[in-house]
Amino acid sequence: MATSGKHWMRLLRTMAAVATARVRPQVKPHRIKLVTSLLGFGGGVFSLSLFKSSPEEEESLQAQASKWMCEPLTSLDHLQKNSSDMKCRMEVLIMRIQADFCRALEELDGEKKFVVDKWHRKEGGGGITCVLQDGTTFEKAGVNISVVQGMLPPSAVQQMRARGKKLEGENLPFFAAGVSSVIHPKNPHIPTVHFNYRYFEVTERDGTKQWWFGGGTDLTPYYLDKEDVVSFHKALKTACDKHGKNYYPEYKKWCDDYFYIKHRGESRGVGGIFFDDLDAPNQDKVFQFVKSCADAVIPSYIPIVKKNRNKPYSYAERTWQLLRRGRYVEFNLIYDRGTKFGLYTPGARYESILMSLPLTARWEYMHTPKKGSREDELTQVLKNPQEWV
Amino acid sequence: MATSGKHWMRLLRTMAAVATARVRPQVKPHRIKLVTSLLGFGGGVFSLSLFKSSPEEEESLQAQASKWMCEPLTSLDHLQKNSSDMKCRMEVLIMRIQADFCRALEELDGEKKFVVDKWHRKEGGGGITCVLQDGTTFEKAGVNISVVQGMLPPSAVQQMRARGKKLEGENLPFFAAGVSSVIHPKNPHIPTVHFNYRYFEVTERDGTKQWWFGGGTDLTPYYLDKEDVVSFHKALKTACDKHGKNYYPEYKKWCDDYFYIKHRGESRGVGGIFFDDLDAPNQDKVFQFVKSCADAVIPSYIPIVKKNRNKPYSYAERTWQLLRRGRYVEFNLIYDRGTKFGLYTPGARYESILMSLPLTARWEYMHTPKKGSREDELTQVLKNPQEWV
Repeated sequence: MATSGKHWMRLLRTMAAVATARVRPQVKPHRIKLVTSLLGFGGGVFSLSLFKSSPEEEESLQAQASKWMCEPLTSLDHLQKNSSDMKCRMEVLIMRIQADFCRALEELDGEKKFVVDKWHRKEGGGGITCVLQDGTTFEKAGVNISVVQGMLPPSAVQQMRARGKKLEGENLPFFAAGVSSVIHPKNPHIPTVHFNYRYFEVTERDGTKQWWFGGGTDLTPYYLDKEDVVSFHKALKTACDKHGKNYYPEYKKWCDDYFYIKHRGESRGVGGIFFDDLDAPNQDKVFQFVKSCADAVIPSYIPIVKKNRNKPYSYAERTWQLLRRGRYVEFNLIYDRGTKFGLYTPGARYESILMSLPLTARWEYMHTPKKGSREDELTQVLKNPQEWV
Repeated sequence: MATSGKHWMRLLRTMAAVATARVRPQVKPHRIKLVTSLLGFGGGVFSLSLFKSSPEEEESLQAQASKWMCEPLTSLDHLQKNSSDMKCRMEVLIMRIQADFCRALEELDGEKKFVVDKWHRKEGGGGITCVLQDGTTFEKAGVNISVVQGMLPPSAVQQMRARGKKLEGENLPFFAAGVSSVIHPKNPHIPTVHFNYRYFEVTERDGTKQWWFGGGTDLTPYYLDKEDVVSFHKALKTACDKHGKNYYPEYKKWCDDYFYIKHRGESRGVGGIFFDDLDAPNQDKVFQFVKSCADAVIPSYIPIVKKNRNKPYSYAERTWQLLRRGRYVEFNLIYDRGTKFGLYTPGARYESILMSLPLTARWEYMHTPKKGSREDELTQVLKNPQEWV
């Protein structure tokens, strides 16, 4: 059974690759299901779960690419030939993470599909922005990848030095690849999720190459459902624990510290994990850790969406959600390093950077939830970050 | 007639002051009208216009204060005894500007009244925030005054030096008094207006006192009505021209440069005037100039509201207005010096600072108006600032 299973899998992959090779840039996963059905598997679940077991290592690059949202920024040929270069490994990873997440969201939304927008940067590289707007379940969902290179502006070098990086020289060549996503659902009983995983390389004046990873996943509910928050944190902790017992507690704290709206004295949400400048113990180990975290996004978030998406909600609950989205905008535009760094970079693609903003947000002067209300319950948690696991 | 008119006016003022002395902090102008009616003048328009001719100089401070939104932050007694000190002159001016503008807006709105919120700052001073939310004409209108003193944090001193101020010492005592306002109407055919006039004093290490004024008024339409924009700029130009022929052209340009959303390459609105660090030719002359500008707010804006408030509008026009409000939020949270400076100041009253944000705002990915549409017409003007007078 195991052998014949493997044999069928190889055959399936080849066929899926052939079947989908001509329909890029928009390859629908149901095409793969169709092939598996034709071969008598009766449904795509089994085949998909096979496909998903450590895909970067097992599948041919062509077969993997057939499921991406569109052609990658770097040619498949280059990615293939340089498959041990971290720049290429990271691009392959983020292409898959983007596609997996977009497909999962499309399936949940039922109505709308992601619009795929591939863009190029004059200075080198580009990105693929996928946006689903005004759907049934999702009000605004953005999943963006970017792979860029060029010269770091002196302001960016200074910012990096300010947070402890030792960089020799002024105009330094860099490479950056990352995936970032913010999902704003319609129903106020579904939290907003954000994640971002990125790899950075800088070449110093003397040719020394520095590299590091950064990222995180965090949840912003409008109403507190402790069960959801706990399951979210548990999924992240499971991903972290595989790589180091200190990772989850450290990066959970870092997340609480980072997503903090200082002027209001409250957190943006109930946290998650956040880390930056990660360059030890070695490149491969950090990559495996980042991969585990990125793969934990779907199991940490999708069940929460499924559980809450059909809950009824009132006008007052919707208004509260919009007020909280106002706070989200405040954090992103005033404090978020990525947004600020992005917008101040000449030639930045602001539409992709601002993709994180909700479709609608609201600001009321001196809005204070009634004591003991569910809105107040959330506010108390935002003012006093907790341990969830 | 002139003599008896003056006699009646004195009597009226005394009576108005007596009649309203007990009803602070919320003195309604109709009370004054009521008194004039009882005395047989038949309507408040004549009496109000008499009251308004150069009020700081002609009226007793008590009579002036009876029309303010609430008691000032500094005692009337102190303001009276130090009436030639610029700190007091400025406080009296901004209290009147706030009241005049709030009354004018209340009259236009018809439904809602301003909520008056007086607050104190632990470090010294405070403010009076007046907000009218979700009215008939106005979606969110804020008119705020603040009178604060204390020690400048080193970051603020550095920021001032960065823009050219020579300041000796590190922890410097300061005084600041200003009025600021943002009016977001409901109807997309009425523009948003913003103004801010402020006076600043800093005492250097050796006791030298530096002072300066800053301010401006600017308009943010959602649809372009050239007639409105021209009349708005003309009213500002008239106010400027009384004090110097170079004022309007210089401060018009400064306004275009300042209210610029750099990452989008477009202006926030159609401009107006903006200036800062004004300390010449002398304190009294700059004060008179600032007073003229602040007094020009009502004649520059109120006629535009009156003209457009009953125009019908579509859902699409409302959506466009919300998208433009998203840009307003972007400018205020990312670029506005006052907001940034304010929010980074420890103990800042963020509710008053963020009062400038609209009740609702919207962000759509890659929204681009159709070529030749009225939305496109506005966008073109925002991308290419024009001369209106």
